[in-house]
Amino acid sequence: MSGYGQQGVSAANIDSIRPKKRLSIGVVGSGNWGTAIAKICGENARAHGHHFRSKVRMWVFEEEIEYKGEKRKLTEVFNEAHENVKYLPGIECPPNVIAVPDVREVARRADILVFVVPHQFIERVCDQMVGLIRPGAVGISCIKGVAVSKEGVRLYSEVISEKLGIYCGVLSGANVANEVAREQFCETTIGFNPPNEVDIPREQIAAVFDRPYFSVVSVDDVAGVALGGALKNVVAMAVGFADGLEWGGNTKAAIMRRGLLEMQKFATTFFDSDPRTMVEQSCGIADLVTSCLGGRNNRCAEAFVKTGKSLETLEKELLGGQLLQGAATSKDVHEFLLTKDMVKDFPLFTAVYNISYEDMDPKDLIIVLQPLKEDSENEGGTETE
Amino acid sequence: MSGYGQQGVSAANIDSIRPKKRLSIGVVGSGNWGTAIAKICGENARAHGHHFRSKVRMWVFEEEIEYKGEKRKLTEVFNEAHENVKYLPGIECPPNVIAVPDVREVARRADILVFVVPHQFIERVCDQMVGLIRPGAVGISCIKGVAVSKEGVRLYSEVISEKLGIYCGVLSGANVANEVAREQFCETTIGFNPPNEVDIPREQIAAVFDRPYFSVVSVDDVAGVALGGALKNVVAMAVGFADGLEWGGNTKAAIMRRGLLEMQKFATTFFDSDPRTMVEQSCGIADLVTSCLGGRNNRCAEAFVKTGKSLETLEKELLGGQLLQGAATSKDVHEFLLTKDMVKDFPLFTAVYNISYEDMDPKDLIIVLQPLKEDSENEGGTETE
Ligand SMILES: O=C(CO)COP(=O)(O)O
Repeated sequence: MSGYGQQGVSAANIDSIRPKKRLSIGVVGSGNWGTAIAKICGENARAHGHHFRSKVRMWVFEEEIEYKGEKRKLTEVFNEAHENVKYLPGIECPPNVIAVPDVREVARRADILVFVVPHQFIERVCDQMVGLIRPGAVGISCIKGVAVSKEGVRLYSEVISEKLGIYCGVLSGANVANEVAREQFCETTIGFNPPNEVDIPREQIAAVFDRPYFSVVSVDDVAGVALGGALKNVVAMAVGFADGLEWGGNTKAAIMRRGLLEMQKFATTFFDSDPRTMVEQSCGIADLVTSCLGGRNNRCAEAFVKTGKSLETLEKELLGGQLLQGAATSKDVHEFLLTKDMVKDFPLFTAVYNISYEDMDPKDLIIVLQPLKEDSENEGGTETE
Repeated sequence: MSGYGQQGVSAANIDSIRPKKRLSIGVVGSGNWGTAIAKICGENARAHGHHFRSKVRMWVFEEEIEYKGEKRKLTEVFNEAHENVKYLPGIECPPNVIAVPDVREVARRADILVFVVPHQFIERVCDQMVGLIRPGAVGISCIKGVAVSKEGVRLYSEVISEKLGIYCGVLSGANVANEVAREQFCETTIGFNPPNEVDIPREQIAAVFDRPYFSVVSVDDVAGVALGGALKNVVAMAVGFADGLEWGGNTKAAIMRRGLLEMQKFATTFFDSDPRTMVEQSCGIADLVTSCLGGRNNRCAEAFVKTGKSLETLEKELLGGQLLQGAATSKDVHEFLLTKDMVKDFPLFTAVYNISYEDMDPKDLIIVLQPLKEDSENEGGTETE
């Protein structure tokens, strides 16, 4: 069955692989995660010159910024200073990363398109790229979350794939943009399992991202990788409620374990996910652990219990307008589970929804952790020997 | 393959199972974990009167203590006050738990023998019990750690089994004695997979321990359960070194993931362990998470980096003379791996040994986290497009 290193391939031996052609990398997005990813792509484009063309185009939504006392265009400043002074200040990107204000140029020139935009923009951005994509191009989505609609749960890689008619994989892991940008070691997971007609080997995709400080494992399981980054936020909220109640470390470990198993169950029940992905890869267990130790969802959920303020208020106070992903995802998941009549099969996800949106008492999380019993317990039975 | 709840059985429906006979429970040990376990056994003996005889005998190593200004015997005080005033003060045990100063009486009267003594005493305690065991009796070892000798790695359940000629399972999980004693919710794992001639179903064994606040999953994989509790200490030290170096959350999550996979690999390579146990059950992932968040090994390893003091000094200062399990286990494991010529297959375990006993720099843990490369990286290749 599974074992250490048995699932997945790394980019470790990329230089012994002879590629069919040198590929161009384009990055769609330039927020703090987008810029950190573009920096990595730029480093690898230079490091693996027989695999990649050096120039990495990064689409930047053009803005006027104040730079050294002057009003300047963000792309111009980036291309001069090799620094995204607005969204990733203090981090130097290699000079082969070029900021491009027109996403259509990125679309036209890339064989590998890396998507790192906030999920609410992805459809509109793709609309502008339609018809411009190179033959044989593929996408990699670094967008965490899932798109839920009446038709069900869709991965953003699926959204991109449908819009642009290309194969799209996923990258997700225990990766905080600023830590990655500062080259603090972390791991990540790529899900990439293209149909036969796609001519780019998975090692080459891994080599776009793998750095000495950013260790990539590439697996076939696209759905597992995408769902890990979405669902872990729900579990991080459950652990946050436990933090708020000052429950012990063992109780929190139990919530994490049960949450991880619900993540795995969700991915294997509704998608064709490999059960090992969630429990063994960075996109599952490791991302969950990081998020449960003081990530955004965790902190908001803790404050929810401790302060009695509403989640909307805390979202404003603690996240500066960012969406509290875990709560929103618990709602999406809940509505989806209702349509499948499977609410009771995901008691922890359901509890997070009920605490966040209904008036379930966080203390009742304990009840959720009990195994289902068919009978109530026969407390105080025979007492003689 | 695996999925939520698919590995293992719980005691949830114990009251619908009709047992062949009522069994007697004996607890060998009465330290703080031993007493917490005896409390649980006592509660379950009363709750499931058709499964168990009410009286639970707990072997107490007799000592004179000072109690309410008088010199008294520890067993007498326990049987009067239903409290282990020396090792688990402030916690009331049910009155059907009886302290017994003679381990032979416990041996003679129990069908289920629960072992909770410090590992260094287990052989001598068993020696006193030889020849007194009831026909059909089984053991459950709650002793964390492994016994390493020239012949290899042995589980304490194997030691007990050989000494007493009984089948012996294992209980281990994310369980801190004081939290369990105070009935803070946690989960645990039992490994119990007896040969056919043993007539006690695994649900009945699970029911000895399962409480509303102590949730048991019973699996077949005895080795995985036993090894989880031993090997997680090694990984907790690695995370402690990272804490000492003030590495980020993602780096620590990567160390935990890699450590968990080494635990799984060790258990599946040298024992017949199910790979799911380590990554899905409380005895693996959950116990590891708790231990990495400020457990003893974690704190000592952090202090080792921050203070520059030796581990022996820190053992004295921080653990009051208790053995630093993680360091000792890393040494045992290292010596065992040398005999198998497999040191390089367990780079994280090996690094913990080398940092603890040789003079490896903790910072070089990063190197260990890199995937093995066959070639050095072709940094600075072609740069033109
Ligand atoms: O995605 C992240 C880590 O990988 C960020 O975590 P939070 O959203 O929990 O802050």
